[in-house]
Amino acid sequence: MSISKKIKASFAQSSMIRKMFSEGAVLKKKFGADKVFDFSIGNPNVEPPEAFKKELINAAAQIIPNKHGYMPNNAGYMETRQAIAEKINKKSGLKLNSDHVIMSCGAAGALNVIFKSLLDPQDEVIVPIPFFMEYASYIDNFGGIIKKVKTQADFSLDVTAIAAVINEKTKAVLINTPNNPTGIVYSEKNIADLARLLTEKGKAMNKTIYLISDEPYSEIVYDDVIVPSILKAYKNSIIAYSYSKTLSLPGERIGYIAVNPEIEYGSDLLNALIICTRILGYVNAPALMQRVVAKLQDTKVDVDVYKRKRDLLCAGLEKAGYKFTRPMGAFYLFPQSPIPDDEEFVKMLLKKNILVVPGSAFGTPGYFRIAYCVDDATIVNSMEGFAEAINDTR
Amino acid sequence: MSISKKIKASFAQSSMIRKMFSEGAVLKKKFGADKVFDFSIGNPNVEPPEAFKKELINAAAQIIPNKHGYMPNNAGYMETRQAIAEKINKKSGLKLNSDHVIMSCGAAGALNVIFKSLLDPQDEVIVPIPFFMEYASYIDNFGGIIKKVKTQADFSLDVTAIAAVINEKTKAVLINTPNNPTGIVYSEKNIADLARLLTEKGKAMNKTIYLISDEPYSEIVYDDVIVPSILKAYKNSIIAYSYSKTLSLPGERIGYIAVNPEIEYGSDLLNALIICTRILGYVNAPALMQRVVAKLQDTKVDVDVYKRKRDLLCAGLEKAGYKFTRPMGAFYLFPQSPIPDDEEFVKMLLKKNILVVPGSAFGTPGYFRIAYCVDDATIVNSMEGFAEAINDTR
Repeated sequence: MSISKKIKASFAQSSMIRKMFSEGAVLKKKFGADKVFDFSIGNPNVEPPEAFKKELINAAAQIIPNKHGYMPNNAGYMETRQAIAEKINKKSGLKLNSDHVIMSCGAAGALNVIFKSLLDPQDEVIVPIPFFMEYASYIDNFGGIIKKVKTQADFSLDVTAIAAVINEKTKAVLINTPNNPTGIVYSEKNIADLARLLTEKGKAMNKTIYLISDEPYSEIVYDDVIVPSILKAYKNSIIAYSYSKTLSLPGERIGYIAVNPEIEYGSDLLNALIICTRILGYVNAPALMQRVVAKLQDTKVDVDVYKRKRDLLCAGLEKAGYKFTRPMGAFYLFPQSPIPDDEEFVKMLLKKNILVVPGSAFGTPGYFRIAYCVDDATIVNSMEGFAEAINDTR
Repeated sequence: MSISKKIKASFAQSSMIRKMFSEGAVLKKKFGADKVFDFSIGNPNVEPPEAFKKELINAAAQIIPNKHGYMPNNAGYMETRQAIAEKINKKSGLKLNSDHVIMSCGAAGALNVIFKSLLDPQDEVIVPIPFFMEYASYIDNFGGIIKKVKTQADFSLDVTAIAAVINEKTKAVLINTPNNPTGIVYSEKNIADLARLLTEKGKAMNKTIYLISDEPYSEIVYDDVIVPSILKAYKNSIIAYSYSKTLSLPGERIGYIAVNPEIEYGSDLLNALIICTRILGYVNAPALMQRVVAKLQDTKVDVDVYKRKRDLLCAGLEKAGYKFTRPMGAFYLFPQSPIPDDEEFVKMLLKKNILVVPGSAFGTPGYFRIAYCVDDATIVNSMEGFAEAINDTR
């Protein structure tokens, strides 16, 4: 063996989501795409908004010097960062300026840059379960230790459980709202309770505990649900954002990091984020897409389409007898597995040509994830298989 | 202090190149852009080729499903990888297919993914000096140790010096040809000697020593110089490539990793590269640019423009009394500092409003780097200052 021992050891537990996604491609070849119900991956099937297409065509044709060159700062174009700061200010009532925004290669890039900036080896990051499994890698990349904590029965934050694991090594809490895989949006009170805890613990231990919120789904919410502003709720807060879902362009890798202007050690942190963007090899977020998103701060995909899919799916699964918490945002549903062994149940669904991801892949066995960013027909036509599978367990 | 101690400690030695680049912006505001001669950064001033502009506009307007979505494989679009494999095969006579090519966020992204895939803590990577300073960070990011080795007087590889530092911990040798900052292209014989050494040492120690070649400048060469194929010369070879310079788009972050089909532990390595692309948060190289570069395998910027700049600069500096090795490629010149203290001499140039980067920033004190990817006028009008500065040392 000559590659990294650590990476080699990770082969076995390599992304279950990507594995199911590949498995889906094989099944589709065998049975035909319309006979396979692929709910494995969060690859939006809703088209980017017309305004995006228009701005992209404009940006592609635009003639300006150094158009595709390096920008003066690894953080990104000033204009883009200023537009984002203003949008955040409108929501939070805070006073960010362009300095508080650092463009990133999506939220995954943002999180890697944040952890590289914050973590020394053995520093701990608290993550409520279920969680997007790649977080474990992002934290481990920089020698950090992930501390998983349970959530409430409805997947809201269990602040007492978080309190119990905070210690001198705690550097940050990482949350994801709206949540992948549950679709839950943490309430204003839930966030306020967490903020109070982190403030008190920080004071008691004379240290800073950062709250990092991964929010690629913050614009994908239903039924007038409001995603509370983390920045408003807690001083030591950092947002990782991506346009992947808001504008349906996960392949383009464009997002940002937003830092609370009141954050402790703020100038060190901003400096570190810029350096880490460079030395992790991102250098800067893709230039053309930075120009495009600058003009689309009030644009998003048609969320009603996802709402319709959620309603279709919830109605069908409820009728079939599945138990779940109704998603408030994102495009995931996280039902209980009818049998305790979720991986076994996922195999049973696979026999019906239905691809989902076991809850174990999110640190929460006994559940499974349905990514419903798919055609309505996929949802409707899968219902027979879902019903058969649950009946087979009875 | 609450950010990473390691990152905080790095603030002081943060990129000298970027520092000079920012300093240049300040000077330009003060004196006017035409009075400042900014040779600090490798930001190409030659426009992207017309074919690129056309393909970009086409790609932006193209209507296809899932156009900006995730691709089936984190490695990138099959068609793009196939086109690149074919281009490499033409040059090397090897038989790469799409599996051997992994799209990356530029060469910086490629190198981070390669080192994450290869290195365990304390593994050593040999790097000839002078070298692009960020290599030290890329290697350190994954716990690797950089072993700097001297080169010959003309900056060609000193194979005996490399032999002397190889040991059981050696995982790879990293070269950069055409070279930043010297502009040298390693000769076929120089590369063959290195390949022979690595083969022999590998056999003697019963281990694999990888040869990684960072080649963003491989299409920017002058006077019919040919960049020898690393893949042809050595079995255990990996190329990191970027379109940043070939197509003048460093802001867009598009490049690739190419792996020798005969490489040892090849399937492990390819698997690791894909996983590391994902877990380092790149996820995939930007989708739209992948489509664009697929069609531009035989396109490059007008290299004659850089050649003219090189000739202008070399003639002027020679006349002023500077000593240097004439660049064969890239757009850098690396003259000797007329006084031993290169940082001091850079300050003397700064007084003439000339921005260059001290050789110490490339691990080689006693020299300085001129990035001549600038307007001809900048070169011509800076000559007086260059002449005055060297005279001031006499």
